[in-house]
Amino acid sequence: MTQMIQPSDTSAPADLPTFEDVKAAATRLRGLAVRTPLIESPALNAAVGGRVLMKAETLQRTGSFKFRGAFNRISQIPDRDKAGGVVAYSSGNHAQGVAAAAALLGLPAVIVMPADAPAIKVENTRGYGAEVVFYDRYKESREEIGLAIAADRKATLVKPYDDPGVIAGQGTCGLEIFEEATARETKLDRLLVCCGGGGFTAGCALALEALSPSTQLFVVEPQGYDDTRLSFEAGHPVPHGDAAPSICDALLSPTPGDITFAVNQRIASGGLTVTDTEVKAAMRYAFRTLKLVVEPGGAVCLAAVLAGKIDVADRVLGLTLSGGNVDAELYCAILSEDD
Amino acid sequence: MTQMIQPSDTSAPADLPTFEDVKAAATRLRGLAVRTPLIESPALNAAVGGRVLMKAETLQRTGSFKFRGAFNRISQIPDRDKAGGVVAYSSGNHAQGVAAAAALLGLPAVIVMPADAPAIKVENTRGYGAEVVFYDRYKESREEIGLAIAADRKATLVKPYDDPGVIAGQGTCGLEIFEEATARETKLDRLLVCCGGGGFTAGCALALEALSPSTQLFVVEPQGYDDTRLSFEAGHPVPHGDAAPSICDALLSPTPGDITFAVNQRIASGGLTVTDTEVKAAMRYAFRTLKLVVEPGGAVCLAAVLAGKIDVADRVLGLTLSGGNVDAELYCAILSEDD
Repeated sequence: MTQMIQPSDTSAPADLPTFEDVKAAATRLRGLAVRTPLIESPALNAAVGGRVLMKAETLQRTGSFKFRGAFNRISQIPDRDKAGGVVAYSSGNHAQGVAAAAALLGLPAVIVMPADAPAIKVENTRGYGAEVVFYDRYKESREEIGLAIAADRKATLVKPYDDPGVIAGQGTCGLEIFEEATARETKLDRLLVCCGGGGFTAGCALALEALSPSTQLFVVEPQGYDDTRLSFEAGHPVPHGDAAPSICDALLSPTPGDITFAVNQRIASGGLTVTDTEVKAAMRYAFRTLKLVVEPGGAVCLAAVLAGKIDVADRVLGLTLSGGNVDAELYCAILSEDD
Repeated sequence: MTQMIQPSDTSAPADLPTFEDVKAAATRLRGLAVRTPLIESPALNAAVGGRVLMKAETLQRTGSFKFRGAFNRISQIPDRDKAGGVVAYSSGNHAQGVAAAAALLGLPAVIVMPADAPAIKVENTRGYGAEVVFYDRYKESREEIGLAIAADRKATLVKPYDDPGVIAGQGTCGLEIFEEATARETKLDRLLVCCGGGGFTAGCALALEALSPSTQLFVVEPQGYDDTRLSFEAGHPVPHGDAAPSICDALLSPTPGDITFAVNQRIASGGLTVTDTEVKAAMRYAFRTLKLVVEPGGAVCLAAVLAGKIDVADRVLGLTLSGGNVDAELYCAILSEDD
């Protein structure tokens, strides 16, 4: 949903996903999604004077959390619609999630990707057996292309975020975060979630609301692409303003979704932004100190912590490392820069 | 212990560590060592046709398993000897482990490191507050330098592997592997451990012997540095032969230790070797598919699996990713090479 939202659209959509949907998704995903570790680094804790628990969705099947939502959504496609397969538009992580989920479920998949998507994401999407159709990010509408393919092939469109099934699937990550925190007899004071269209945030928010309602939830967005933060301020979904290009290719959606915004507005406490410079420093920190490969969009929460955008001192903070799909060339260019 | 072992030395040393020592070490390390995740990748499982459970000691405090043994050993230094501090010789991971453990325990530390040690290891060792003394790997004896410093400062020498306290500490990693496998209702058919002097292997072997005696244990060494494999064949510790330089800086010890060999000979089933080319391919796989930063010496077990040195089909195999301390420059040179 990327059209401009008018004031008349601000009433909450009727079919908001619930925590029950998240639990049902967890059942569907059992044994298929990786139960990724919640990683704690003594070095990072010492650096910030608090505790940081990092949910490493970099280690998820397809290298990002997107498999969770894609599988949960696609596994609920009615039998009569399965032959048409699925179509999705995505800068790459949703593409891989949809492609892998469709392959596991035996459905054909077509993915509409920007021509400038990271090569590793294109390669992996094809590796899962999906057909890739490119579009020009600056001149064409991926939604129109996706809808045309869906109509032509009688395929089911799997939206990247503004879909209750997708949101519920992403929520299984939040469910695991709070289950694991409880297993460690720890309560999170705050949770930071990497935010593009808001599906990951909304899913995690549902888990938070049910399991740890006193935990404060903050979205983290790239500077200039803070449409969710701006929408919180406006009280309804608004697009971000003009923005310089960002390396956070996974988080460049123009506005929150109707459904994601309705959920996030209800539950989240606010939004933070980080610059590309801060993101790169976080990626280097993840390489040098955490030994984790994190893509730009996956590093925004860590960047917010390292750049002091939120106070962690004497607190327990959870955050998502949402993906690790970055080309070696860009990765090494970033590693070679100075802090 | 790097001197040539004579036949008269082949009787087992009297003070071999036991599984009880490993359990005691686990108690000492609780809350200080990271309980690192045992990671499973659907992509890797599919590639090998079996299950691979990877113990990510890359995520350990100091970026390798070495903190475990160092802390366990240093925490047992008698009060009367604490003022003299500790001295250690190491290519880098033991250095960081000793430096971090000494800092936590409030003891001064001097580390003897080769002049060509990776910069990240030298920098981190100093970062933990240790004094670094360099030596020439090809002309000087690190043992002699270490012993001279120990005598001069009344410091306790913390050997890198041939010490019961160090071995018991490393064994806590094996303890966690088998505890976690049990928690997942899984039994390992085989366990591969990265092997230099054999301390990590010996510690893990003690846990295996007690908790999962039917699991076959294999050491993995860099080609040309397969002194443990050769020693298994000889029936007593022998040095490796002449060898070309290897990128696996963490695994270049010349012979097994007396203690480590006695334990490993009793428990291990054999040894595998991998080439630098295979190690580099494994590091690229870890970057691209696993999203984990692994140093050359830490990648030898993964390399053995990916290169087909051991059959994983329809089996459950455990392996160690023993460390992730690699300079960005070398890392990126390796990422830029073709498979």
